[in-house]
Amino acid sequence: MTYDALKKSLWMYASGPDDDVVVSSRIRLARNIAHIPFPEAASDEHMAQVLALVAQAQNNDAMQQFPTQWLSLSELDAVQLHLLIEKHVISPQLAQCSEHSAVMLSEDESLSVMVNEEDHLRMQVLLPGLQLHEAWRQAYALDEALESTLDFAFHDQLGYLTSCLTNVGTGIRASVMLHLPGLALKKRIHDVIESVTQIGLVVRGLYGEGTDAKGNLYQVSNQMTLGKREEDIIDHLQNVVRQIVDHEKLSRSQLIHDTPAALADRLWRSFGALAHAHIMTSKEATEKLSDLRFGIDIGLIDPPPKRPMNELLVMTQPGFLQMQFGDEMSPMHRDVYRAKLLREALADR
Amino acid sequence: MTYDALKKSLWMYASGPDDDVVVSSRIRLARNIAHIPFPEAASDEHMAQVLALVAQAQNNDAMQQFPTQWLSLSELDAVQLHLLIEKHVISPQLAQCSEHSAVMLSEDESLSVMVNEEDHLRMQVLLPGLQLHEAWRQAYALDEALESTLDFAFHDQLGYLTSCLTNVGTGIRASVMLHLPGLALKKRIHDVIESVTQIGLVVRGLYGEGTDAKGNLYQVSNQMTLGKREEDIIDHLQNVVRQIVDHEKLSRSQLIHDTPAALADRLWRSFGALAHAHIMTSKEATEKLSDLRFGIDIGLIDPPPKRPMNELLVMTQPGFLQMQFGDEMSPMHRDVYRAKLLREALADR
Repeated sequence: MTYDALKKSLWMYASGPDDDVVVSSRIRLARNIAHIPFPEAASDEHMAQVLALVAQAQNNDAMQQFPTQWLSLSELDAVQLHLLIEKHVISPQLAQCSEHSAVMLSEDESLSVMVNEEDHLRMQVLLPGLQLHEAWRQAYALDEALESTLDFAFHDQLGYLTSCLTNVGTGIRASVMLHLPGLALKKRIHDVIESVTQIGLVVRGLYGEGTDAKGNLYQVSNQMTLGKREEDIIDHLQNVVRQIVDHEKLSRSQLIHDTPAALADRLWRSFGALAHAHIMTSKEATEKLSDLRFGIDIGLIDPPPKRPMNELLVMTQPGFLQMQFGDEMSPMHRDVYRAKLLREALADR
Repeated sequence: MTYDALKKSLWMYASGPDDDVVVSSRIRLARNIAHIPFPEAASDEHMAQVLALVAQAQNNDAMQQFPTQWLSLSELDAVQLHLLIEKHVISPQLAQCSEHSAVMLSEDESLSVMVNEEDHLRMQVLLPGLQLHEAWRQAYALDEALESTLDFAFHDQLGYLTSCLTNVGTGIRASVMLHLPGLALKKRIHDVIESVTQIGLVVRGLYGEGTDAKGNLYQVSNQMTLGKREEDIIDHLQNVVRQIVDHEKLSRSQLIHDTPAALADRLWRSFGALAHAHIMTSKEATEKLSDLRFGIDIGLIDPPPKRPMNELLVMTQPGFLQMQFGDEMSPMHRDVYRAKLLREALADR
């Protein structure tokens, strides 16, 4: 089956609770099929066996409530893979081992199951705004449906067995993508990251592990998966995120109250650059789109652009641009085309 | 008589030959009344005598072809004086000795006669574009008209006597205001200034002697006034300006041909900042308005803003802004109000 790269991901277009700060919420479950080595140690035959078993499970009775398409990563080109990463539908790791990997994907891309990433199965539910509990409800149901015909590796005392020790137990990773321009401008962001890290949560950049926090976008997720109930993990993250959201909103109020002209100047200048520049790097676009998103969320930039901010963010990433022009595109051409896309997107505000 | 500060100067609104490079042409004649000490050495009585004589001459028969209003500088407030300087109608020097000074001003402000500046009379004709010969024609006629009832200090061998030795002889200063963004971007501007200086011309900034060349605006004028016919002085300046105009146009063509994206990026980003910033200093406005003027003159920024560039330049100077709000305006308020004026001026492009 081919992948329609222009397909719209739910998290990019729908709204959700507190989505002026919380861009998206995600639950990921790591599962492995019993009696088959983890992907790291698996032979080609083992991996093919996993693919066959999961493909079979895709069609079991319980899975009929989750209609998905099956994409073999070996059939996708580099640009399509890049785009799936930029849309947060698959991980960069899965794209790297694309030969024996696949992904099951729901129509709105809110549900996905990566096959033969670090674990045999990585299920993901990705929703707009702060919806950790709803994401968990869907992930739980998806897990049940797959488990109705798959035999997951499970240890009575440890729980689900996973490739990486940090995932053993519940195999759950709950995360949120936060947009924190207020805390960044008030220079409080490092204090917040430090506090969050001290209570056992992890803070990462836009594209997960090892990436920088570009455009004031931060991923916050749980670290521990062993010896805790899933609900407790999610409650804990939800409570911390609630507090970060409050801090962010306080910082925004202070900026609006204390330095309204300086704030308007910064955010509108970023709009001016996005709407008029003819050359723009990915880095600058991400930074200025953060300002624009901030301006829209506080009602300063009104009317907002018709194109959703998440779409502008994704469409200015290198993968999306290459999809339009193929691999031939030089970085300079990319910067020129990115600026053109942004001008067009902001012209009909 | 009061001064209507919102009156429009001809050079700011009319078009003229080569006005994509030559903003304006100016002829200034220095004259002194015989047997009265130069202003530098004159008593209050002497200056009052000069004012009376010139006021009388304003109404002589020959002057009927040049209808002018009479403004006593002592009756203008600091803000009105500042604005007259920014419109290039009077010199900063005249404003400094405002107690015994006056200016005669034609309806379109293209003709002016400063009284009791460095010399008793300084006549000025200021026209848009490259019109040195036309400006000289008018200045000559104005000089004749005033001389029909005034006795100018004249020496058979030296010519007209003036306060400063550099003006003795013809008493003429011919100058043009040039906008040279192409030469500036191609880093050729210093070579041009050096060449021009070596052949006996003077290069100055936007507001004459001792001011910086802000916004790529340069005043080029003759240095010598003694032992040359006025026509020769003007021909010489005209020829040199012609060459500078050609060099500037060549630089512009090269920029458009060699680095079109970089040029469009720079000029449109300046437009974006002017159209959207909420705080803007006078320095930044002048620089960015130079980019905007450049973009309009090469047809890149199309349609151009409805407000003429010269008006935008003048209305963002401190004097104009203070006129709107009085002396109370702090520099920060000025920067906020300047940005507001520019946003409004560029919104209805």
